[in-house]
Parts: sequence; C-alpha cells; structure tokens
Amino acid sequence: MTLIEKLNLGEIPKKIRKVAAYEKIEPYMLSEKVLKGRAILPCNRKHKEIRAVAIGEGLRTKVNANIGTSEDYPYLEDELKKLRVAIEAGADTVMDLSTGGNLDQIRHEIIANSSIPVGTVPIYQAALEAKEKYGSIVEMSTDLIFEVIEKQAEDGVDFMTVHCGVTQRALQSLQEQGRITEIVSRGGAFIAAWMLRHQRENPLYEDFDHLLKIAKKFDVTLSLGDGMRPGCLADASDRAQFAELLTLGELVGEARKTRVQVIVEGPGHLPFDQIVANVQMEKEICEGAPFYLLGPLVTDVAPGYDHITSAIGGTMAAYAGADFLCYVTPREHLGLPTIEDTKEGVIVCRIAAHAADIAKGVKGADEWDLKMAKARKALDWSSQIALSINPEKANNAHQERKGNEQETCTMCGEFCAMKLVSQFLGSKYQEKCL
Amino acid sequence: MTLIEKLNLGEIPKKIRKVAAYEKIEPYMLSEKVLKGRAILPCNRKHKEIRAVAIGEGLRTKVNANIGTSEDYPYLEDELKKLRVAIEAGADTVMDLSTGGNLDQIRHEIIANSSIPVGTVPIYQAALEAKEKYGSIVEMSTDLIFEVIEKQAEDGVDFMTVHCGVTQRALQSLQEQGRITEIVSRGGAFIAAWMLRHQRENPLYEDFDHLLKIAKKFDVTLSLGDGMRPGCLADASDRAQFAELLTLGELVGEARKTRVQVIVEGPGHLPFDQIVANVQMEKEICEGAPFYLLGPLVTDVAPGYDHITSAIGGTMAAYAGADFLCYVTPREHLGLPTIEDTKEGVIVCRIAAHAADIAKGVKGADEWDLKMAKARKALDWSSQIALSINPEKANNAHQERKGNEQETCTMCGEFCAMKLVSQFLGSKYQEKCL
Repeated sequence: MTLIEKLNLGEIPKKIRKVAAYEKIEPYMLSEKVLKGRAILPCNRKHKEIRAVAIGEGLRTKVNANIGTSEDYPYLEDELKKLRVAIEAGADTVMDLSTGGNLDQIRHEIIANSSIPVGTVPIYQAALEAKEKYGSIVEMSTDLIFEVIEKQAEDGVDFMTVHCGVTQRALQSLQEQGRITEIVSRGGAFIAAWMLRHQRENPLYEDFDHLLKIAKKFDVTLSLGDGMRPGCLADASDRAQFAELLTLGELVGEARKTRVQVIVEGPGHLPFDQIVANVQMEKEICEGAPFYLLGPLVTDVAPGYDHITSAIGGTMAAYAGADFLCYVTPREHLGLPTIEDTKEGVIVCRIAAHAADIAKGVKGADEWDLKMAKARKALDWSSQIALSINPEKANNAHQERKGNEQETCTMCGEFCAMKLVSQFLGSKYQEKCL
Repeated sequence: MTLIEKLNLGEIPKKIRKVAAYEKIEPYMLSEKVLKGRAILPCNRKHKEIRAVAIGEGLRTKVNANIGTSEDYPYLEDELKKLRVAIEAGADTVMDLSTGGNLDQIRHEIIANSSIPVGTVPIYQAALEAKEKYGSIVEMSTDLIFEVIEKQAEDGVDFMTVHCGVTQRALQSLQEQGRITEIVSRGGAFIAAWMLRHQRENPLYEDFDHLLKIAKKFDVTLSLGDGMRPGCLADASDRAQFAELLTLGELVGEARKTRVQVIVEGPGHLPFDQIVANVQMEKEICEGAPFYLLGPLVTDVAPGYDHITSAIGGTMAAYAGADFLCYVTPREHLGLPTIEDTKEGVIVCRIAAHAADIAKGVKGADEWDLKMAKARKALDWSSQIALSINPEKANNAHQERKGNEQETCTMCGEFCAMKLVSQFLGSKYQEKCL
C-alpha cells in the first residue's frame, strides 16, 4: 500500500506522528493534508531508515540540495562529501543529478549514505544510456525510459522529476511565441529533442499511467518537472510555461486518483513582481499540490551570486505559498558546484526558507531569532556564534576582525549602542525585557 | 540659493539635466520631483565636481556604502581603499561613519577623493570630542553638536544623518512597551544617553531650526535618522519606531518650508511580511519624502550573511517604493568591514536595487538582463563575463571549474540544454528570437 492508501484506511503511521511533532501540528491534521494532496512525505518503501520529511501547505518551508557528477567531474567521492555537507548544513532532501561516471553506482552510494529523502531525474540516465548504446540521446526508446525509471524506483529513490508537461502543445507555444533562451531545463531539453526528432508526443505524458504504476508500486513521489521554465527574465510567464502548467494540473488529478503522491515544479528566472502570481497560479491550477521552486532568480546579471538572486526570489515565493525550495549555488551558470558551493547553497536557501516561514507565521519559526536577539543584547558572543545559521563562518568573521574590547565588536568598540543604552536605561528596565 | 530655490525660480541647472538624461526622464519632470520633495540631489555647494545623483520616486534605486574607521581600526589608508572599491563596484553615494583616528582628516580626505556624494553622521564626532574633552560622550554641549554639524557642512558633506526623532515621547514609548534590543542605532544611542542623563529634550529636535539654517547655508541634504529602528525582528514596527516616524513626518514639512532637501531613514530588522507596510507608512506619513533604508534584515540568525538577509529585505522594500538602500556587509554584527566586505556589500546591494528596479518597471532596467540572456543562449562566454555584475568573480568561478568543452560549462558539459535545443529547433527559429 502507498502512504495515501494507508491514511485512507484511517491508519496513522509512525512517520506521520514523528513529522507532525516536528512540525508542531496534530498528526491527524498532517494526515488530512497528505490525503488531500496538499502535503507529501517522500518515502520510497525500499529506502529504509531515512528521516521523514513533510512538504506542503502550512508546514515549514523545505530545502533541497542538488548534487551529482558531470562528465567533467565524474568523481563519486566528491559527491558523497557534498551529500554529507548538505545534510550537515540542514538540507531536507537531496537530488542526485549525476550525468558523469557510473550512474548506477553513484546513485546506490548516495541512497545508501543519505539519511534524508533522495530524488533523481531518471531521464538523464535514459539519455546517457541511449547515447552510449546508440550514439545519440535522442535515440532513447520509450522502453528504455520506463526501464530506467523502474530501476531507480527499485533502488529506493524517494521522489523523481518527470517532465510530463513538455507536450507537443507546449512546444508549439514556445515556437510560436518565441523565446530568448528557449529550454534551459536539461531534462526538458532531452525530451523536447526526442519529440522534435521523432515527431511524437512526450512518452511521459502519453504513457503517464505507466509512470503512475511504477510510482505506486514503490510509493515514489512524482515531481512534475518544469521543462518549459523560463531561463531568463524576458521569457518569464509566457504561454509555453503556462501551457505546461495546465498539463501538470491535469496530471496532478490523475496521480491523486491513483493515490500516488505528487508535487509540481516551478520556475526559474522570474522578475520579482511576477513571483506571487506564479505561485498563486500553480496553487490554483494544480489544486493545492505542493510547489517546488528552483530559485526563482530575480535577475540574470549576477553569475557568482545566484544563490543570492535565488534567495531573494525564494523568500518571496515561499512567503506567497511555495513549499519547497531547491537551492541554487554561487556556481550556477558557471560550472559544476564544489563542496563549498554546496554548503553555501544550502545555508543561503535556508535563510530564504526561514525568513519566509517567519513572515507566513509558521509555528515557532521566530523563536530562533528571539534567542539570537537576546544573546546580542546581552553581548553574549558564544551564544551569538552558537545560534548562527553557520557558526563556523560567523566565528571566523568575528575573530578575523577582533579588537581590544572583549564585550563589543570592532564595528563600534566602546561606542556600542547596545552597551551604552543598557547603562543609561538601567537594570530595572532590562529585567522587564530580558 | 539652495537647489530648491533655484528650481523654484524656474531655473534648470546643468546637474538636473545630466541626471535626468541618466534616469531617462525629462529634466522638467526631475525638477518637479525635487520641488515637491519626492526626489533629492545631495550636493553641498562646497563639494565640487561630484557625479550628481538623484534619489527618489520613479528613479533608479540608489545604493549607499558605509565606510569609516573605528577605534580598533583607525587607518585612513584602508578607508580610502574602501572608498575606491565602493565607487568601482557601483555605489551611488558613500557615508563616512568614522569613530577612530583623526576624524577631521579622514573626512577631508574622503571628501577630496570621492567622485560621488558623501554623507556623515555628525553626532559621532560631537560625542567623541565630548569624550576627549570632558571624559564622557554624554557631556556633549548643544553648542558642540551644532559646531560639529557646521564644521562638517563647511567641509562639503553632501548629506547628513540627524537623529531628530529620538524625542522624550519616543523614549517613553520604548520604555513603556519594552524592547529586546532597545536602541541599536549608534547615533540614536548617543542622543538617547544624553537625553536620559540630562533629562532634556533632543537638541536636534528642539532646535531643528538651527539645523535647517546650517543645511540651507551649504545646501546640505538632511537625512532624518531612525534612532529608534528595531534591532531585531521582535522589536519591529512597535510604538517607539512609529512615534519617531510621526516626528520625522512633521520635520519633513518644516524642511520643505525652508527649501532644504530632506529624506527619511528607516529600519532595520523587519519580518518580510512587514516591509511593504513600513514603506507605505513612511511614504504616507512623510508625504512622499524619499525613503532611505538600512536593510531591512529579514532574519536575525544569519551573521556572516547579512548582506544577503538585507538584499532579500531590500528588494522587497525598493519594490514597495523605497528609493535608497544602504548596503550591509557580510561582517555586519561581527566586526568592522574589510575592503573585500565593502565590495561584496555594494555588489549585493546593487543586486537588490536592480531586481527591484526591474520589478517596478524603472525605464531600461531590464535591458541589461536581456543582453545577458542573449549572451547565455549564444554560449558567448566573454560577453557573459563582461555583462556580469562582478566580472572578476564570475570569471574566476568559471575558470576554477573548467572542463574539456569550450562552449558549455562543467554543469552539463555536452548535455547543455541551450546547445541541444538550438540544434533541434533549427536556425530559422533562432533568427526570429535573437
């Protein structure tokens, strides 16, 4: 039985209770959300002993870290280090997006070593195998695609991105309306190239039932990919993007009927003023399915800073109702991220998620900040460091620019406002506040 | 005559024409904005040959960089390097916030070497001189305060932060309602300490006319400081903060009557959901006076990343109508920024300003992004690097993770979506789009 089937029988499995306690809500409320498709708990029945995580409406905004090799950097060891670093830095899930080296082995190792849910994009492996066997990625057979999906499900992958919405209709929209960067989703491009080459409909759309059957068998959560996501601000919110979203909305309905968990992926590059509309449209068209966003990046001109352009967009998106943010690293648009990029990516994405959670009133989200504020006012440096989202970085930055005063920092030294006002407002007032 | 007096006579000075051309608006429209107090051009009549800059409604969002020594790092040479770096990185203005070393000399050198408007917070020098002469900062005489202000105006300071709104009324609000971090503005703390020690009203409020007289004489723009700004999320948008804002609103009216240019400073630490209201309230209460924001920081828990927490808040604020963003560096809350911190601070603040400008439809703001998008699609790396907001950083990040393919990056290598789709969509389609 899938998780939804169990919940449907009135059962409340242990992982639901555990996650509900973490989210500070009642287990039956979480069950309800999952049953209605407004929250998910990605957990392949073959992937044992992971920390379950719920993603959806009213829950803490979650953060995904993409790891994985490329042709130029096919080193398993590095990716396992990224996995460790991502988990330590607080990622809620990881995705293995490997496209270099022995993909089966890399995936097995990542799943075996991950304490958090693992996602993949199976079309990458299908394309690479087609290239190896037949000389070109567009020579994928539909059988090969579904075989790879089943193999990965069997391996214990908890959630899978499937670009089902790259239909002939969406491609036609793209070609008619025109775009600067056309398709920037790698999976979307593989599918589109195949469709253009063979003049056929997307098999992931045409044979969505097959996909559902596999997903159901292993209780894999489907993440409906945004192959038509805009790759620059100028392409944002066009007809190709929304043609895809309409299809994804239909498929959400199909998945729910089959009792398969499903989420929807979203853009991409979006001007800051279009973010709220994009989130609301997804929520409406996909009937409340959790929204998984990459970025959105609010400008195209800041390579080297795209963890920041994404954090700006991500905060707004999560505040508007997005449930799940995919990190973007400082290396985005420039190369495959390093281990250090992975850490920075997770931390900065968590900043966006946390800022949004405070803003949307997620229970208990502001308690951390209150503790930090009290530590600051008390000039208690060890607590300030310990409470920092990245204690090591905060400590180094503090120590590097240390001065003579122990109590204050070198910004103001003895002219510290905190210190000065405490002296003059007196201790009675202090007690009232602290 | 002040700039406003000249405009009032129907004159349109050269700097108005120059700035209007840069902002892509008609000179008479810019004059109108300045006359109505909805935009300012900070330009002390003694500060020759600076690049004039306009700040206000409908104009490109501007970025200020704070530089200046502290007791622990009193080195003029470093601050002059920060000045250079800030200007090169694209700051529109700088503020000299020095509190260590020979303050007069540092200020003279910064003004002499700055091609952009320079601001100060004169109360710092008054407090430091009081400490030197009388042993305590609270021993400032009101004469000393105004002498320092006049001296700095005479030196050519273009805009000055004056914490006129820290009134007995505001302090009473603070004490009655209670706060975690009380006062975190250094200037606000100096004034408040003085007021509590002497049980007197704030001289900058009580004798605002004196301030206006000096400002008018040198055509200094007054930046009404937010001494009561919240220093943590828990303190945001409280009665103390708004008591101060109401006073600042009154003083905006006084300044306008005197034909002195005036802007208003704002918080600080704000939950993301309170930013829009804060900007709207300032605009309403201060009758459209340009809003100058520090941050706002959307979480307290990210020391080492406060350039990012500020960029998140700053984008939202500027989108909602804030006109002028003060950068925050990664060293905020931890120590005096280094030269590298200054550069990062300016760049990241510019990202926020630019993202907001695109979102609010500032004329021509999105052209830069369009060029970058086209360079990306063409896999034209030299243009991508040249168009980056920090070309050096982008280039290093690209080179560090270089692979075998010249055309694509190591993220996807030959599986580059951009490349793949171009092959399959064909050149006719390309021409239509590029």
